[in-house]
Amino acid sequence: MKITFLGTSSGSPTKQRNLSATAVQPETGKPWILVDCGEATQHRLLHTPLSPHRLETILITHIHGDHCYGLPGLLASCQLTGRTAPLTLIGPRQAWEFIDAVIRTTELYLEYPLEFIEVSEALCHEAAGFRVTASPLSHRTQCWGYRVEELDVPLQLDVERLHAEGVAAGPAYASLQRGEDVQLDDGRTLLSADYTQLSRKPRVVVIAGDNDTPECLSAACDQADLLIHEATYTEEVLQQVGPEPQHSSAQRVASFAEQAGIPNLLLTHFSPRYAFASKRPPAKRSGGHRISEIRDEARQHYSGHLELAEDLDRWLLSRQGMLLPL
Amino acid sequence: MKITFLGTSSGSPTKQRNLSATAVQPETGKPWILVDCGEATQHRLLHTPLSPHRLETILITHIHGDHCYGLPGLLASCQLTGRTAPLTLIGPRQAWEFIDAVIRTTELYLEYPLEFIEVSEALCHEAAGFRVTASPLSHRTQCWGYRVEELDVPLQLDVERLHAEGVAAGPAYASLQRGEDVQLDDGRTLLSADYTQLSRKPRVVVIAGDNDTPECLSAACDQADLLIHEATYTEEVLQQVGPEPQHSSAQRVASFAEQAGIPNLLLTHFSPRYAFASKRPPAKRSGGHRISEIRDEARQHYSGHLELAEDLDRWLLSRQGMLLPL
Repeated sequence: MKITFLGTSSGSPTKQRNLSATAVQPETGKPWILVDCGEATQHRLLHTPLSPHRLETILITHIHGDHCYGLPGLLASCQLTGRTAPLTLIGPRQAWEFIDAVIRTTELYLEYPLEFIEVSEALCHEAAGFRVTASPLSHRTQCWGYRVEELDVPLQLDVERLHAEGVAAGPAYASLQRGEDVQLDDGRTLLSADYTQLSRKPRVVVIAGDNDTPECLSAACDQADLLIHEATYTEEVLQQVGPEPQHSSAQRVASFAEQAGIPNLLLTHFSPRYAFASKRPPAKRSGGHRISEIRDEARQHYSGHLELAEDLDRWLLSRQGMLLPL
Repeated sequence: MKITFLGTSSGSPTKQRNLSATAVQPETGKPWILVDCGEATQHRLLHTPLSPHRLETILITHIHGDHCYGLPGLLASCQLTGRTAPLTLIGPRQAWEFIDAVIRTTELYLEYPLEFIEVSEALCHEAAGFRVTASPLSHRTQCWGYRVEELDVPLQLDVERLHAEGVAAGPAYASLQRGEDVQLDDGRTLLSADYTQLSRKPRVVVIAGDNDTPECLSAACDQADLLIHEATYTEEVLQQVGPEPQHSSAQRVASFAEQAGIPNLLLTHFSPRYAFASKRPPAKRSGGHRISEIRDEARQHYSGHLELAEDLDRWLLSRQGMLLPL
């Protein structure tokens, strides 16, 4: 699975960071899915190998502008560049009301099919080789986290059992391994499920929207290889800001990921106050902070593989569940 | 007057060109006005000295997305960064319906006053030291061009007449020059208008929206120092595309500017097919064209000072009406 960060700032863009948008693509193949679509997501895409025409599904976590104001432009550019393939939009009902209103008020004509699915705990959507499910989060508006699980993990044949049952190697083996049930010449029917198992654990990435309670994702993170979660500020800044915005601190997310045993943690959605590279002193006048403050705090509470997302960073989650830079 | 191009592409962004947005600022002072607000205008502003908090008025030429999808994000970021000053939005009625719908569907709270003025031929709006009037254009949706005229040109005193009428030099001179009427000790009232004239012609810039008939701007361009107009393609490409999009070619705009005697012409809003620098060969596969084709065509029909806008280009229209790079 390949992850591309198209925006990693919260609220407003900075010179370095665009607004929330994260692409997930299978390790091979062109189709992909997008989680959130902050303003200028289409601009960022121009600097990646991702084709807007191969985008299959857009998942919106919540309706705040920094997570969805890039939708109209992306949809419009798909039309202008001749997209014909259907596109699915998944999110809270307001996401559709937003797009519907934009279509009506700005004479936006989309000739390709745009389907909307309202997100719920019952969501089970397949796109780009993934199965997507959703969990409600805790934010000041309805907000969701998406679990993206790899489909089509190759099956491994239980050759020992087949031998033991006297089934000779041949075309039946290949059929069973493809997941097909087989009728043998001797009349026996073999169910693929009885003679195969997944050759490895399917890869699982959980991508959260804004959320002040990472524990909302406990069930979604079962068997997850990677959690991508906002860490808008450090706990100290969160205490200064107060609880109203309902964001997470690095400490809260890191502590949750540690407790849940998630092997890889990618933090994103940083307050623009962290606009300063770790080696430059923060600008006092602007209340500037160093992004290293987020990293340092998370590191204190999490012993796994920790990374802070940067715009246009691309990551590979390997078949072995290792998070590697691309 | 200072002009900053924040976006110069039509329809979709390219790696080099953002979507339509042009800032106009007085030669001195921080307030400014914005004509159109394509997606990611706020991103471009981060790379200029223009402060969103000193933006006084946004003029929308028409409701197509490439001219207004940056509005919600810019308004939201003004709120997030603590703007309190009122902001005026001027444009077709749909521009307000668009913003109103976005506010309703995306929980966008604006605490600073946002006033809407529907554009019409009766528009006469003052902001940032300019007087703005509007002319209807010819496009496939209601579209406008804005004439931006400098206010506060210093007055020149008619010293000869004052001498001739026996008015002694003194505080009365200064008052008259500031535009104030004066009562003399001998009972005479002097009207400033009778004893002053503008020290020079006010600078005038006309900024058009999308428009297939530049002649719509004949009256607006009276005494104009600079016309900023779309030249989406060359005439040859326009003929291939057909008239439906209702855009101008370089030839049409250049011929109009020549005939109207406009001394400076800045072309913008180029089709993404002109994504290739003049020294690089066009990519055949993508139907690529060189931007120099636009320049060459315009040059054939216009003998004044011709420039093609690039993103983040800044221009000074001097008091003498010269267009100079900043």
